[in-house]
Amino acid sequence: MREKHVKIASTGIYVPPIIMTPEDFEKKTGIKVDPTFIERTGLKVKRVAPPEETPATMAAKAAEMALERAKMSIDEIDLIIVGTDTPEAISPPTAPKVQALLNGSKKEIPAFDVNASCANPAYMLELGTSMIKGNAKYRNVLLVGTYAMTRFLRWKFMWEWIFSDGASAVILSESEEPGYLASKLRADGTFWDYWGIFMGAWKPISEQVVDDTLPYLDLRRAYPPVNDQFWPILIKNVMEQAKISLDDITQIIYTQVRLKTILDVTKSLGLPENRTHWVMDKYGYTGSACVYMALHDALEQGKVEKGKVVILVASGVGYQQGAIAFRWL
Amino acid sequence: MREKHVKIASTGIYVPPIIMTPEDFEKKTGIKVDPTFIERTGLKVKRVAPPEETPATMAAKAAEMALERAKMSIDEIDLIIVGTDTPEAISPPTAPKVQALLNGSKKEIPAFDVNASCANPAYMLELGTSMIKGNAKYRNVLLVGTYAMTRFLRWKFMWEWIFSDGASAVILSESEEPGYLASKLRADGTFWDYWGIFMGAWKPISEQVVDDTLPYLDLRRAYPPVNDQFWPILIKNVMEQAKISLDDITQIIYTQVRLKTILDVTKSLGLPENRTHWVMDKYGYTGSACVYMALHDALEQGKVEKGKVVILVASGVGYQQGAIAFRWL
Repeated sequence: MREKHVKIASTGIYVPPIIMTPEDFEKKTGIKVDPTFIERTGLKVKRVAPPEETPATMAAKAAEMALERAKMSIDEIDLIIVGTDTPEAISPPTAPKVQALLNGSKKEIPAFDVNASCANPAYMLELGTSMIKGNAKYRNVLLVGTYAMTRFLRWKFMWEWIFSDGASAVILSESEEPGYLASKLRADGTFWDYWGIFMGAWKPISEQVVDDTLPYLDLRRAYPPVNDQFWPILIKNVMEQAKISLDDITQIIYTQVRLKTILDVTKSLGLPENRTHWVMDKYGYTGSACVYMALHDALEQGKVEKGKVVILVASGVGYQQGAIAFRWL
Repeated sequence: MREKHVKIASTGIYVPPIIMTPEDFEKKTGIKVDPTFIERTGLKVKRVAPPEETPATMAAKAAEMALERAKMSIDEIDLIIVGTDTPEAISPPTAPKVQALLNGSKKEIPAFDVNASCANPAYMLELGTSMIKGNAKYRNVLLVGTYAMTRFLRWKFMWEWIFSDGASAVILSESEEPGYLASKLRADGTFWDYWGIFMGAWKPISEQVVDDTLPYLDLRRAYPPVNDQFWPILIKNVMEQAKISLDDITQIIYTQVRLKTILDVTKSLGLPENRTHWVMDKYGYTGSACVYMALHDALEQGKVEKGKVVILVASGVGYQQGAIAFRWL
């Protein structure tokens, strides 16, 4: 049996049109965003989904762009995976709604949600790749990250400045040459109760509807700097597995939540600043969507060199982290 | 390259201790459950998680039983997938909490949630199998289905009689001989808004907290008989792919929501009644947990013949359906 290979065939994004500046935020909330916070995070604006946009509609738009760029029809997609921790609803999953919006229901394309919170971009790539390599049925897999965290804000804390809305998509396809090279995922559930939207089955809903902190995003305990600590370890791990050196890398793209961490990690690896790319300055923090968004933008700007390696690194609450390396074919 | 094979190495369940009879339900709600409804569905009792049990604690207990039966330590598990549409919380996912409860955080075992609603048992088997076959890193994958739908009930409708709580687990392992034979998944997102817990990012939470139908399970439109219609088609599809006949089948195990459908489909296939197994009479309907629960119970009762084929068939809102065939090694 010949080994199957997998490549990233195309990308797409959807960014909602509403741009909120720190001044707009102050007008809405009465809170001035600390300029040093903006500088450290790199989050210069917020993008907010208008009322008619939802995680599913944004996901469908990002997916349509990825299909168009791959010159593919939805009928050629064998599986749809949607990654989000801001779903349309607690149940059903968001993926079948996206499938229907893309007109994928005619061919009954299997669709399901994945939730590794904002580590979804890395986890979905690992999942999609393994499904193509491990099962002849799957040749083209559509991955969509979507995020509508502004829906879960109370608009009364400065940290709520962080969160934006948006979606992004990747199409993974079977390939002649190896795109996918290596990956490393990790998780540590002892951090489960630090940050989250803590409404769910952990206690009767009747008790939750009277606790008005529960349906909202809540930052309950400060996270230690797990990205500063583990991103270099994850990157070195996949480099070693893939037997590549720093010279082989064209881009390392990270969860877009804190620019200072991205620049510090880039420096600590011994890479120049132009070997990473960021979009939080124009799109804000978009969680499950941000890594493919930054990849898409880097591609648009010609910053991804063919034949070289892209490493995608993602982190999310719970928590989960992952890094995954693809040669750009 | 030699093809990797995958088998079901063990199973485990957790059933909460509280048993609710139709009489108890009537006492709590003032609603008498129609005896013909009980007969058609086969749902003779409800199992209700006590306040201290949650989707994660039940999942961990089912997983512990599966580990014990496989004579495996958690350190031998390479990946944890939790399938639920009644998560602990909207975010983070339930899986890292289960990982921590199982003491899997020491080894940083990757963990994520899957949501194909109550089709999770079939979707997770497809995912776990593909990950083992497609990626050398994954040799033992822990799948857990968990369900705490009683948490989302208003206790004021007769149909709420259907829903119970519980969890079940399967360990998938690399094997010499093929366990996994074939699968067929499908989805149709045009049914997205029929049944669900419609609290989520589809509109601002501030509007949702004042709509007291939203955080609860809501049956908004009647489903057509999609299981009666598609289960036989899915089963015949996997039988054809696996090149097996009815004589090769030891058990076909279905989503445990309506006994009449299970018996009708069994008969339409030309199989005797003892070639399926049900547990809804003692455990109620447990959604993402019910298929592995029934498999576990069939194994306990010696109803699964070695060398023959088990087909697992699952359905869930959204909707998704799937059938997957394993030779019992």
